[in-house]
Amino acid sequence: MALDPLSAKFAALADPTRRAILARLALGEASVSELAAPFDMTMPAVSKHLKVLEGAGLIARGREAQWRPCRIEPEGLKNVDSWLESYRRFWDKRLDRLEHYLHTLQSKDRKRGRRKQG
Amino acid sequence: MALDPLSAKFAALADPTRRAILARLALGEASVSELAAPFDMTMPAVSKHLKVLEGAGLIARGREAQWRPCRIEPEGLKNVDSWLESYRRFWDKRLDRLEHYLHTLQSKDRKRGRRKQG
Repeated sequence: MALDPLSAKFAALADPTRRAILARLALGEASVSELAAPFDMTMPAVSKHLKVLEGAGLIARGREAQWRPCRIEPEGLKNVDSWLESYRRFWDKRLDRLEHYLHTLQSKDRKRGRRKQG
Repeated sequence: MALDPLSAKFAALADPTRRAILARLALGEASVSELAAPFDMTMPAVSKHLKVLEGAGLIARGREAQWRPCRIEPEGLKNVDSWLESYRRFWDKRLDRLEHYLHTLQSKDRKRGRRKQG
């Protein structure tokens, strides 16, 4: 069963090696052998991780026959960030206070509206 | 092999039902049966998902013997957000421009410093 796009991204990120590859690609594009070197991994093992990242839309690979540079997909994590957005209030107290403040303003505004009508 | 905390969170989120359970708990605590109802799932199936979410530190469960309410763990997604932070510049052009502007300011500042020394 194919994963939905957001699940595929979360699944791809659930691995420290794949997150490290992504961190390396955030600095600039790299070849498979350049990516394999710091991890002490075989090329097929790295290729497997790259396939997962590519399938999830987190990286893209060049189409050059010999050297297929990997690069980060700039908008790849955008929907992960959007998903997280609605939960941010739980740990970001500043957001929480802002929300509270806006609610106060809105309720004051409603009361004022009622007074005018009455 | 046990997953590292961040991988465990990503793995837990790589499932639409678990994300839906989390979205429901963001509105307030709920019992297992309350959570099972809208999903047309058996209680054991829901319990299994809850165990994954709890193991990843995304939810907590009350210790009351009969009714064990589930609630969202307010700081559960904080490290996911922190991890995402360093990638935000890729899709948030405003952040990118801000970063660029800060670099310009810093380099102007450095030049000014050198001129004063010279």
